[in-house]
Amino acid sequence: MAAARSLASCIFCKIIKGEIPSFKLVETELSYSFLDIGPLSKGHALVIPKDHTVKMHELPDEYLADAMPIAKKIAIAQGLENFNILQNNGRIAHQEVDHVHFHVIPKPSASDNEGLVIGWPAQKPSMDDLKAFHAELVGKLEGKL
Amino acid sequence: MAAARSLASCIFCKIIKGEIPSFKLVETELSYSFLDIGPLSKGHALVIPKDHTVKMHELPDEYLADAMPIAKKIAIAQGLENFNILQNNGRIAHQEVDHVHFHVIPKPSASDNEGLVIGWPAQKPSMDDLKAFHAELVGKLEGKL
Ligand SMILES: [Zn+2]
Ligand SMILES: [Zn+2]
Repeated sequence: MAAARSLASCIFCKIIKGEIPSFKLVETELSYSFLDIGPLSKGHALVIPKDHTVKMHELPDEYLADAMPIAKKIAIAQGLENFNILQNNGRIAHQEVDHVHFHVIPKPSASDNEGLVIGWPAQKPSMDDLKAFHAELVGKLEGKL
Repeated sequence: MAAARSLASCIFCKIIKGEIPSFKLVETELSYSFLDIGPLSKGHALVIPKDHTVKMHELPDEYLADAMPIAKKIAIAQGLENFNILQNNGRIAHQEVDHVHFHVIPKPSASDNEGLVIGWPAQKPSMDDLKAFHAELVGKLEGKL
């Protein structure tokens, strides 16, 4: 396993190192989790890898694999039935801190005033367009990985 | 490892078994991924465990651990820079199929007409409220897990 990277100016790296206090929840060798202090709902938590990586596709697999079982523990401990797991990459995709983080966001009611609010602008591509795009993507998956 | 569960009437279980065709991407022993045919943006894909489980916190850890590295491969093959990973649990949290699925949703532009649209109704709890809730939750994490 590669040594975990850290960035001195990163707020999440500081939280991991304990240089900034946090409401810590579960910690493992590879991950750290804590309550979001600007929550969308009561119990909103973050799970972050102990590796300074900006976007999820740049993160080593072992960190990615470690994150979701922690989110599960946090959901179970809260007895959540309705909740969202969200991980944003890039400013226009709503990423605000440049260190990978997985949100665990309880959705206590259907109200737009608490929890994640989701808009779903579904497209209607033709089957031919999907088929062509699929063939191209499968080629890239086989060729590049 | 427990045997994978399957539900005859579940559309995702049918896709895994090949009873319903799909635009398959990456498949592993534990997971299956394919293009969403009602995408929010071109390249919108789903990663699902090969185990019929309704919500993520009910899923065995090995399936949870397997999903994110697959989402990463799909993001890399598409060369994505801006995208969201989303997993919804419960109707009011926008879950539409009752078999755990992780969305990989490209965000090609800041437009609300394509990709995931996110609303963020941040709350402002007091530090005292956060502290009390944190103490309670840590107790549950330690006691129940
Ligand atoms: Zn960092
Ligand atoms: Zn199923």
